[in-house]
Amino acid sequence: MDADHALSHEEALHTSWNNDHAPELRIESGETVTFECLNDSGPGITPETDAEELAETEFIGHHLTGPVAVDGAEPGDVLQIDIQEVEHDDWGYTLIRSGDRGKGLLPEEFPDPYLYHWDLDDDVAPFEAGIEIPIAPFPGVVGLAPAANGDHSTGPPRRVGGNMDIKHLTAGSTVYLPVEVADALFSIGDGHAAQGDGEVCVSAIETPTTITARITLRTDLDIDGPQFETTGPFTPSGRDEPMYATTGIRDDLMDATKDAVLAMIDHLQERWGLTREEAYVLCSVAADLKINEVVDRPNWVVSAYLAESLFEEA
Amino acid sequence: MDADHALSHEEALHTSWNNDHAPELRIESGETVTFECLNDSGPGITPETDAEELAETEFIGHHLTGPVAVDGAEPGDVLQIDIQEVEHDDWGYTLIRSGDRGKGLLPEEFPDPYLYHWDLDDDVAPFEAGIEIPIAPFPGVVGLAPAANGDHSTGPPRRVGGNMDIKHLTAGSTVYLPVEVADALFSIGDGHAAQGDGEVCVSAIETPTTITARITLRTDLDIDGPQFETTGPFTPSGRDEPMYATTGIRDDLMDATKDAVLAMIDHLQERWGLTREEAYVLCSVAADLKINEVVDRPNWVVSAYLAESLFEEA
Repeated sequence: MDADHALSHEEALHTSWNNDHAPELRIESGETVTFECLNDSGPGITPETDAEELAETEFIGHHLTGPVAVDGAEPGDVLQIDIQEVEHDDWGYTLIRSGDRGKGLLPEEFPDPYLYHWDLDDDVAPFEAGIEIPIAPFPGVVGLAPAANGDHSTGPPRRVGGNMDIKHLTAGSTVYLPVEVADALFSIGDGHAAQGDGEVCVSAIETPTTITARITLRTDLDIDGPQFETTGPFTPSGRDEPMYATTGIRDDLMDATKDAVLAMIDHLQERWGLTREEAYVLCSVAADLKINEVVDRPNWVVSAYLAESLFEEA
Repeated sequence: MDADHALSHEEALHTSWNNDHAPELRIESGETVTFECLNDSGPGITPETDAEELAETEFIGHHLTGPVAVDGAEPGDVLQIDIQEVEHDDWGYTLIRSGDRGKGLLPEEFPDPYLYHWDLDDDVAPFEAGIEIPIAPFPGVVGLAPAANGDHSTGPPRRVGGNMDIKHLTAGSTVYLPVEVADALFSIGDGHAAQGDGEVCVSAIETPTTITARITLRTDLDIDGPQFETTGPFTPSGRDEPMYATTGIRDDLMDATKDAVLAMIDHLQERWGLTREEAYVLCSVAADLKINEVVDRPNWVVSAYLAESLFEEA
């Protein structure tokens, strides 16, 4: 896609948020930029990495491309990012971090490191047992430098965005982020070829990406956190289709979420013969977490939904 | 719809869960039943009720039709409920409970009682400002008597189901519930003409319903909580369409949920000129809460999604 500017991780890579990072590119409001982005862990994980090596690697931060300075942006403004195109690599991976660096929704249930490598077609990622995951690529990280000085981990998302992992930030979507520093200092990366709402095992189908976006300064908006417009996908096929869902019914939303995912893992093992790790990975890349009700005191309902169509070849 | 049996609230009404409630109907596994159900509050709220009267009414429990005894059902079995048809009334209401009986996600933000009456067409419920809510009726309560003796409030959902308020339990869906007592003792009610994932103001479009379901005993399944199959709707149109979404980014899922809904209420006031109460009601009947990520420690992301198509007439 022809853009006004191009920026590559070879010239503009950073692995922390810091409003002191010098921008490699300065643009005017309304211009487009094509960003070449590494996979989240950069060279730390390659197609040759195996699970044993994974135990020895450390996650030092998402490998982001940026920052881009936007002329005239001031704290209190809003940056509008129209995501126009997201191209993905033909390789991806999903990992489970384990042990004392346990991450994800269920670290106590998955004590061993696990790494799954994907071959990515244009439209689908074949998995085990004939299962196919539809590809819908998006950047896991879309964010601005925070006002607070110093280095900040790229792990948690913040008021200025960052590692939001919103699966609906696909091509055609628009993100609005509150600006906290002069020039806004925009960065992007952490490409995902597919992900479920929740990203429960702590990773999606992680893949290098090339992302084109239009970046526009909005001084007419007033927001206190990220907002976005999207057309989905809300189902694998883009239209209503059969889903199987498991529930968690608890007086705490996190406990309800864990119960729903554990029940889906059990279901996937029993019905489709997946290993426990495969089931956890499948939930992370394809199952959607919805809050069904958050008002029927004292018990809330969270459900994990998985499309039956993924298994049609199984 | 022709069913094997019919059961009306006139002969089989109860407003609490209790495994001592005598069944008015006994069926064999695989038979169908048409249930006539009152609105959730029964005669406590009618088309003539206004907000001032609401402050004086008390919610004594959902007005459920049942229980139905299923021959041969034993604790440890599973009851499969195929929801075949859900017919709704031409009247519905949505309420905000206030003050010291404050309910819903944001009771502190809405101190005054509020009651909205809807005229329901077959397919849509017209709202303020030209907004139209697509109708997709379902029972808010689908449940079995719990093993624990005595009266239990119908408010919270439990392991045996109950007030789950899962908007996807529309006609064509199937629910699986774990049986805890002999004969299962199934009840249903709390009809909703439409609801968002979350039901944030504590009520949906509440309406009387007539529901036909096939009830099948499954001794080959082993589940520890409700599970279900559904074809949605996952969007108002049944296919991918533009949504506007607001985020909550916090280290607690409940706080994130509140932030996302508060941001959507602000957005609806500013962009569409709704009152604060109208915006809260609209979120409750049409906005969907999704957990975008629950692993980017310490901050989780919950978003409220609302279809732009609701406003096309606005």
